[in-house]
Amino acid sequence: MASADVHHRTADFRAVYQRVLADLKVFVGTKNDVLLLAASGSGAMEAAVANLTSPGDRVLVLTAGKFGERWLDLTKAFGCQIDVVKAPYGETVSVDEVKSALKPDTRVVYMQATESSTGARLDVEGVANLVRGTDALLVVDAITGLGTTRFDVDGWGLDVIIGGSQKAVMIPPGLAYLSVSEKAWSRMSSAKQPRFYFDLQKERKAASKGESAFTPATSLIAGLAAAMDYLRENGKGDLAAGRELLIDNAELAAKMTRAAAAALGLELFSAKAPAAALTAITAPNGVSSDDIVKRFRDQFGAVVANGQAEMKGKLFRIAHLGYYDYMDTMGVLAALEQIVAELQPGRVEFGSALRAAQEVFAKAKAK
Amino acid sequence: MASADVHHRTADFRAVYQRVLADLKVFVGTKNDVLLLAASGSGAMEAAVANLTSPGDRVLVLTAGKFGERWLDLTKAFGCQIDVVKAPYGETVSVDEVKSALKPDTRVVYMQATESSTGARLDVEGVANLVRGTDALLVVDAITGLGTTRFDVDGWGLDVIIGGSQKAVMIPPGLAYLSVSEKAWSRMSSAKQPRFYFDLQKERKAASKGESAFTPATSLIAGLAAAMDYLRENGKGDLAAGRELLIDNAELAAKMTRAAAAALGLELFSAKAPAAALTAITAPNGVSSDDIVKRFRDQFGAVVANGQAEMKGKLFRIAHLGYYDYMDTMGVLAALEQIVAELQPGRVEFGSALRAAQEVFAKAKAK
Repeated sequence: MASADVHHRTADFRAVYQRVLADLKVFVGTKNDVLLLAASGSGAMEAAVANLTSPGDRVLVLTAGKFGERWLDLTKAFGCQIDVVKAPYGETVSVDEVKSALKPDTRVVYMQATESSTGARLDVEGVANLVRGTDALLVVDAITGLGTTRFDVDGWGLDVIIGGSQKAVMIPPGLAYLSVSEKAWSRMSSAKQPRFYFDLQKERKAASKGESAFTPATSLIAGLAAAMDYLRENGKGDLAAGRELLIDNAELAAKMTRAAAAALGLELFSAKAPAAALTAITAPNGVSSDDIVKRFRDQFGAVVANGQAEMKGKLFRIAHLGYYDYMDTMGVLAALEQIVAELQPGRVEFGSALRAAQEVFAKAKAK
Repeated sequence: MASADVHHRTADFRAVYQRVLADLKVFVGTKNDVLLLAASGSGAMEAAVANLTSPGDRVLVLTAGKFGERWLDLTKAFGCQIDVVKAPYGETVSVDEVKSALKPDTRVVYMQATESSTGARLDVEGVANLVRGTDALLVVDAITGLGTTRFDVDGWGLDVIIGGSQKAVMIPPGLAYLSVSEKAWSRMSSAKQPRFYFDLQKERKAASKGESAFTPATSLIAGLAAAMDYLRENGKGDLAAGRELLIDNAELAAKMTRAAAAALGLELFSAKAPAAALTAITAPNGVSSDDIVKRFRDQFGAVVANGQAEMKGKLFRIAHLGYYDYMDTMGVLAALEQIVAELQPGRVEFGSALRAAQEVFAKAKAK
């Protein structure tokens, strides 16, 4: 990234930009256009509302936590008529309820792939099977889903799928990317929200010339190019294979963490449909997750996320996306044993959670 | 920047964020709130339309080039009723014309401080004197103006002034900042455009807690903190003094460049009101600026910008903002002599433009 301080209207930069856009198509796994925006993931979420709806349009929002609620806030800000299918925090959205809530005049369905605030996985394929073949568009916030979860973007008919730079692609925040289907492009001509910075048609036109509509975040784009090269290298020259390894890695780390939590007698916050991007663990009785998060930071220099808003103090979240590997995961789980032992003396047999995680790993490798 | 891959919801990052926001107030020279957005400068321009207008509001746009036209596109996208004061490319906007165009029901006036597409300087103080005391707000795109031009933001009553990361503050693109006056904050409660990602009230609330409303561009913010430290160091511990030196530097490099152009018999594209951020020079008769730009790049590895859109081929632009110093400037001017000599044999006496620049420098230092 440090080597990337190039001017953005040069052939050198255009070459990098075009390569990144082409690589992202492979990474997302789609024949659709993929576009980049200089914004965090929420900016791309706004683009998926501002470009695909008109004021008063009926939309269906699926929510299972804080990021689902962001779709509610966004569609409300743009004056949509909103239907909601809501799952309690920690649960996943019922596809049957979505089926009932999907109306003939529903214009867009908005959902997450993985709800990062609770660690729940949503059934994107199940929802896509309902939406495909209707007039509605399906928009999936996969900011923590891409690179941790398998999607058949074109086969399932995901009209927009959104990713962010600081997640599985492992670079700092400030860059969002999204793929856009032909069905979504057709909608845009009639979608009458004001839009400018996030105007996807303008961005598509610029991308066709290897440029961005507005000044691109050059250093982050160079970082993204390097991340794609890293994945391709892991895949022995095949970027899609590298992406599969990245997903395998997240799934395995998540499975190890779930086994470790079980060995410690800790409950998963999203036990029924846990995501591979992260594992949310409920703080044990009488302990605040504030204290757990603080001890991770102060004693081990590790950032483990607390619950957000009303979930603060109740759960903590361990990430598995991107380059978190076996050793990182074992280190975090070892620290977790240490912390639980301090907070609840007598509860922990040192090494028991680690052993459980190791057994998961050994079994996976034996396959 | 590379050291900055910290999680953004941590005390460490909050400390950096608060320090950068405080430093930016000094850099901008205002008591108003300054906010950061993870977007390029155009995103902050959109924020100044989406947060300050309602559909149908009467606005006055001053335009003297491509970036003025961006205000037109933006206010049109948001359904404003637009009055325009237009200067031909290369000229500056007449304050008298602004006076006539400013109506009692004008809600916002949008302008540039420096029109980067032509190298023209606009009279911000003159326009501010007309707008201050009326009900209208004044919004200034100073993306290339801040750090190259002197503003009395609070004294003149600039309600919003916008900067970008990749300009005088010398870091890669992807971060915009803007200051917002009390008068502008009051307007927001009644301004009825849809807005979410660029919602400034939400951003202000988050900033009061040392956070950003959405995931911040952490690496760029760390870079900005380092840039502020660099300016403070130059100012011997005083950031405002460091900013003055930065402006002096741009002004001097611009003056050197203008003197060199004159010595070569080249015309300035914006002779009447040249900005200090950059100098736009008209390509000599019979020569395309495409060729000049190409020679700078191929022979000297230097990026000199071509004209944009219909000005492509007609002019080239030499930047003075940020850390371009005496040696950079002399290097570019030497290369310019070389290139003009190649393109128009017999025209150049080698060293003449350089001597003119050196004399400007010596005179400035003698003061």
